[in-house]
Amino acid sequence: MTQSNVVHPVNVAIVPDSFKGSARASEVAAAIADGVQAAANSVGRDVAITAVPFADGGEGTLDALTDAWGTEPQSVQTTDALGRAVSSRFGLSADGTTAVIEAAEAAGLPQVSDVPRQPLKATTFGLGALVTQALDLGVQKIILCLGGSATTDGGAGLLSALGAKLLDEQEQELAPGGGLLSKLAGIDVSTLDPRAQQVTWQIACDVTNPLLGANGAAAVFGPQKGASPQDVEKLDAGLRKLADVLEAATGRKIRDRAGMGAAGGLALCIGSYCEVELVPGWELVARAINAHEILSAAQLVFTGEGRLDSQSLQGKVVSGVLQAANRQADVIVIAGSVALDEAALADSGILAAYSIAQGPADLEELSSNALQLIRRTAYSVARTYLR
Amino acid sequence: MTQSNVVHPVNVAIVPDSFKGSARASEVAAAIADGVQAAANSVGRDVAITAVPFADGGEGTLDALTDAWGTEPQSVQTTDALGRAVSSRFGLSADGTTAVIEAAEAAGLPQVSDVPRQPLKATTFGLGALVTQALDLGVQKIILCLGGSATTDGGAGLLSALGAKLLDEQEQELAPGGGLLSKLAGIDVSTLDPRAQQVTWQIACDVTNPLLGANGAAAVFGPQKGASPQDVEKLDAGLRKLADVLEAATGRKIRDRAGMGAAGGLALCIGSYCEVELVPGWELVARAINAHEILSAAQLVFTGEGRLDSQSLQGKVVSGVLQAANRQADVIVIAGSVALDEAALADSGILAAYSIAQGPADLEELSSNALQLIRRTAYSVARTYLR
Repeated sequence: MTQSNVVHPVNVAIVPDSFKGSARASEVAAAIADGVQAAANSVGRDVAITAVPFADGGEGTLDALTDAWGTEPQSVQTTDALGRAVSSRFGLSADGTTAVIEAAEAAGLPQVSDVPRQPLKATTFGLGALVTQALDLGVQKIILCLGGSATTDGGAGLLSALGAKLLDEQEQELAPGGGLLSKLAGIDVSTLDPRAQQVTWQIACDVTNPLLGANGAAAVFGPQKGASPQDVEKLDAGLRKLADVLEAATGRKIRDRAGMGAAGGLALCIGSYCEVELVPGWELVARAINAHEILSAAQLVFTGEGRLDSQSLQGKVVSGVLQAANRQADVIVIAGSVALDEAALADSGILAAYSIAQGPADLEELSSNALQLIRRTAYSVARTYLR
Repeated sequence: MTQSNVVHPVNVAIVPDSFKGSARASEVAAAIADGVQAAANSVGRDVAITAVPFADGGEGTLDALTDAWGTEPQSVQTTDALGRAVSSRFGLSADGTTAVIEAAEAAGLPQVSDVPRQPLKATTFGLGALVTQALDLGVQKIILCLGGSATTDGGAGLLSALGAKLLDEQEQELAPGGGLLSKLAGIDVSTLDPRAQQVTWQIACDVTNPLLGANGAAAVFGPQKGASPQDVEKLDAGLRKLADVLEAATGRKIRDRAGMGAAGGLALCIGSYCEVELVPGWELVARAINAHEILSAAQLVFTGEGRLDSQSLQGKVVSGVLQAANRQADVIVIAGSVALDEAALADSGILAAYSIAQGPADLEELSSNALQLIRRTAYSVARTYLR
């Protein structure tokens, strides 16, 4: 903190993630802002606060973006990863130009956790209704958040839902799911919704795995979706066949792009026919909420999340904030729990990290009082900083 | 914090209480100092740290003072409040001029908790051996910390141990304990150790109760020492008789002095024959460790204790630090648990208070890792402050 005799307001940016299971990002941001403003008043310092909810492209991104945009998520009747009817949500920016869709909403693993996992049959087909509704509303950009999917179908289901036909040797349409993709012989895109190729696709992707092989979608993420070793082999072969057919049809080879292995290869089909950008989730969200502008102007930055640990520094909101913040800025983290030691903290570029715990307490106590504890922690920290 | 282009070292005073049951004050002070120094190094700021253990005259005062003096407590064979043999401790300053004695060491309630409480028989006699040993070593000042006593004998036992004779109508010496004091007829001080009257007595006392009556030693503190309503009446009558006899003998009336009701009237006999000063415990400790000098020079002050709550602001270490600190200084509290809300904190004059908890944890986890957590909390807080 630099101070001269002329006291300028301290520019404070507040860009937290949600505290998963306890508070959404917009609530966390408001609680921190309350605490900082009260602290500034109490020590007679002037602060200029900008508070916006942040997210990393994973769970909570739809909420964070619609909260930041001041819009309500819209509901669409569609089907889940096993083809059962479900109501799913997507978000629309206030100007109507941008939609945000989470893969987990209509192809998510939690939604199908009531029955045994069926990794070979799980499909991204249900996402098509969300995309179509967004296209009907005239959006120019679709932010598609990967992560949380139950599927390993290379996005074939989504492509079908948008009008393409995936055909076997007998020119019969394939049934949904990655398990049958090795029977794929051709793709008919004559009936593909042309608007899908006119919009900009931004795909939020936090892993760098390629589509195929030992580090690919089936091998790395298949088991958590219920795939046995035999299933993994079948799914990997299916994705390979899908990639072969797509390359033959389009002349584009995208299977080796970093991140193409995310969400069961979800970006593969769309990426073969449309212009897609694979971007770290936090970066997409940052663009959508103007985080770069907000962060570059801030001298003091508050961020936060439920648990600060080594993963926070790899592609999560905290790492995004550290990358996007002004290099002179002081970044402070408020978290439900802090599991980084002093050395890791100092190396990370975080100025300081604080748990919201005020003494002995279990997770339930911290969760149920999260907003009050966040406000209070921000209050103490801001008083300390602003002196 | 004021800063000019010429950067002066930040004067930091670290004066914590113990974290009861977890860490002694000197350990807490060292842990905070470590954290602050590491933080200062990490942000390239120069700090001048003075760290000394503090205490409030209650449990932990002997440890804090001997740690501050760099001396080891001395052991003396004596008797507990029920007359059973026990090894008790007192402390000696490095220059040998000052002794610190805790009433709880040889007249304490915990030591006699293995048997049913005997409020009428409990005696301060055992403290005499500690005082005598200190006098033998040539001290000029005795700091006597009240609090934690099992006794309600007006200090009669201590006076006997120092050579006086408490006599009944038949000129027989009274048996120990407050229950027989109503039979007191006279006191023979011809055999009182003359050195007891030559030293300065400083009595650490955190309550303002008078000796007698509804707010007196027996009525207010008797029940927690096991006194029934009948016992309370008997003890109050005994203390009244003792005060009457002492006043008749010395011409001094001290029964109404604020604090004379502390520790079962322990200061009454000594105060009648010797010059004693009744001082808040934190103030006595502050003088003994030069806290006023250290605190008046500090711009940033760290203190701490196991639990920060409304009691902390009434006669405890934290309130003492707030009173003794430079009015411009920033006082930060590090505690096992923080149970003061934002308004109470701001009103108290505390800049900010931090729990050492880094997330969900029970008391046992916090206790067993207290020093590491204290260091880490101090590190984050100091980085935040020093920016």
